[in-house]
Amino acid sequence: MLVEQNNKVDPAKWPIAPHVLSLETSVINEILKISSRPGVISFAGGLPAPDLFPLADLQEAMDKSVEKYHSDCMQYSLSRGIIPLRQQLATRAVEQGAPTKVDNIIITSGAQQGLEVVARVFIDPGDYILTENPTYLGAMQAFNYYQARYVAIEMDEEGMMVDQVAAKIEKYKPKLIYTVSNFQNPTGITMSLKRRRALIEIAVSYDIPIVDDNPYCQIQFEGEPITTLKALGRDAVIELNTFSKTVAPGLRIGWMNGPERIMPQFEKVKQCTDLHSNTLCQYMIYEYIKAGRFEPHIETIKANYRHKRNIMLGAMRDFFPDEVRRTEPKGGLFLWVELPRQASAKNLLPKAIESKVAYVYGEPFFPNQGGENCLRLNFSNASPEEIVEGIKRLGKLFKENI
Amino acid sequence: MLVEQNNKVDPAKWPIAPHVLSLETSVINEILKISSRPGVISFAGGLPAPDLFPLADLQEAMDKSVEKYHSDCMQYSLSRGIIPLRQQLATRAVEQGAPTKVDNIIITSGAQQGLEVVARVFIDPGDYILTENPTYLGAMQAFNYYQARYVAIEMDEEGMMVDQVAAKIEKYKPKLIYTVSNFQNPTGITMSLKRRRALIEIAVSYDIPIVDDNPYCQIQFEGEPITTLKALGRDAVIELNTFSKTVAPGLRIGWMNGPERIMPQFEKVKQCTDLHSNTLCQYMIYEYIKAGRFEPHIETIKANYRHKRNIMLGAMRDFFPDEVRRTEPKGGLFLWVELPRQASAKNLLPKAIESKVAYVYGEPFFPNQGGENCLRLNFSNASPEEIVEGIKRLGKLFKENI
Repeated sequence: MLVEQNNKVDPAKWPIAPHVLSLETSVINEILKISSRPGVISFAGGLPAPDLFPLADLQEAMDKSVEKYHSDCMQYSLSRGIIPLRQQLATRAVEQGAPTKVDNIIITSGAQQGLEVVARVFIDPGDYILTENPTYLGAMQAFNYYQARYVAIEMDEEGMMVDQVAAKIEKYKPKLIYTVSNFQNPTGITMSLKRRRALIEIAVSYDIPIVDDNPYCQIQFEGEPITTLKALGRDAVIELNTFSKTVAPGLRIGWMNGPERIMPQFEKVKQCTDLHSNTLCQYMIYEYIKAGRFEPHIETIKANYRHKRNIMLGAMRDFFPDEVRRTEPKGGLFLWVELPRQASAKNLLPKAIESKVAYVYGEPFFPNQGGENCLRLNFSNASPEEIVEGIKRLGKLFKENI
Repeated sequence: MLVEQNNKVDPAKWPIAPHVLSLETSVINEILKISSRPGVISFAGGLPAPDLFPLADLQEAMDKSVEKYHSDCMQYSLSRGIIPLRQQLATRAVEQGAPTKVDNIIITSGAQQGLEVVARVFIDPGDYILTENPTYLGAMQAFNYYQARYVAIEMDEEGMMVDQVAAKIEKYKPKLIYTVSNFQNPTGITMSLKRRRALIEIAVSYDIPIVDDNPYCQIQFEGEPITTLKALGRDAVIELNTFSKTVAPGLRIGWMNGPERIMPQFEKVKQCTDLHSNTLCQYMIYEYIKAGRFEPHIETIKANYRHKRNIMLGAMRDFFPDEVRRTEPKGGLFLWVELPRQASAKNLLPKAIESKVAYVYGEPFFPNQGGENCLRLNFSNASPEEIVEGIKRLGKLFKENI
């Protein structure tokens, strides 16, 4: 009888909510699948260098967590996150110039969940979000479910062109200002101090929260230490952050630093979506930092990625045609390439894959189309030798096809 | 200048999405805060016994994961979850009678995220969900954001009264049938085999997915082995499961077992909300099971909780007034108490706290009101001595107040 019943089951008839059906699968995921083929040198992902993960130190941190907290490190815990880690993050934020208390911090499962939380709390269908143009693709994935629309502000070498923001706010009344202010994904560009101040002034005058998606800030290669939007704007800014680029992404530990009075809303959303983030990994990160392992590790990452960025820029000087432009990021994991205007990075990608090198083309990063002649390159994941060889292959491809 | 600006920042003016604003904080959370006061014997939570967490075996599993998978166990991983764990879960499901492949499984951050995912995929504002009456409070928390309404079907000792379901479906056209079929939270009741078959037949004939929230199934104290809804209904059923009650909740590793063709929708939602679940803990659980540690551990848990249930039922026979009824669950973590009809478990709670004993009163578990004379007791977390003393205190309270 049951087999007969089972033949009648047709999940295709189950009614899917329309805004889920219309969500697109990430283009990057598709490219990542292709670029993981053997022999392909991939600049497509956003993966940190796996050889730098502090495996032994994290094992030590786990042993210490079990020894000190016993079953508490495996039990249900607070939706906002364990207090010692939140206290530690608050103290660190203060040291970086942003007055912060434990009640300003909520632990999330990576910065991606921070995006999900702000979207859910602020966005009604059809609301506008003001972003950079281009902007982070994963943020749009989170925002799209909530049927956000985008006001995308052009960028130059100082970041978002803030002088265009007020007029756009008047016209579109966005609910959020979303920025990746430091070593932006995808362009590698950092917002200038002058622009930061101007953006905060505008946001405050219009009562619009700034969401600063800030995973790369600590991976700074050179220049004056950055003054974050959070340090400048304080309660005007919700900062999203993560240990994914500085410790290990597989632990899925990120955090939000926002005004205390908005935290109960964030907490409710966190609670109904997954109760709380992984207790064990929260304790592990806390013990890892407490043991003094984190600061020297960041220095290691900075030196490694700085070196790889230099290798990539050097190889570009050697192998790219003169008419190809690129950013020269002072930190982070990505740089941005602009081909001559008539070229299509999307159309070139299959040829690149044939030549065993991969990138992400620009269009998916533009909320309202554009970027056909652009592409994003990651310099943290490949080895220096692979970077030289990959850029050489790309240079050949560009010379022959643009 | 910035301080002056900062004085003007008023996050109270930030517009919160109405469906987030209207979400209620969990009543249970408030009760848990009170019941964590020193000296209070708490039957209020749903916490597994912390002294049973297999800490040493999990440390061993972490060491093995690092040794075997190196940086892979700390890196970004697939949104659906790591393949070895999904394969292992599929094999185990087959052993339990449900034909399952790796592509039927998606790893979630606890079963709570499974609830969030099914709600997002299936529920449009105002849609009905058919549930037991009472039902799991955390499920309603996840569903309420999506503005679900509820058709709640009465229960008896065989679970949901399935003979009432077809008429309710005709009238309310629910999008989902949600059940906690085994050792239900909150009542401890298990659906009979006959009712299971009948429910599947109805669900199939109306093309409505059954969501079987099944965290307690493996913690069975006695009786014939359970045939799960998934084993009976196959593609008609989406099963939600978790290691929270059998290994440790702080790891936040759960899973969904559903028809292959619905999985791309679940994957999209998982990806845009938090990319993927904790990679390290997925490998740890996989290695823990592979090392043969899981099955004997479940036997330990069963013996421990069976003993505590017996202690609690015995103490009730000794100390509760005769007119107080209770369920006698054959597994799980909870039992359910019904006071005489005119009594209010909510009004009695402050007196219970004064007597240093805590429970959750019944009303929050009823989607459309009811249950004023009921309360839920957890028997997994307190020690046997605490259970006897706590039930004694409750018995005194009931005798004096009802």
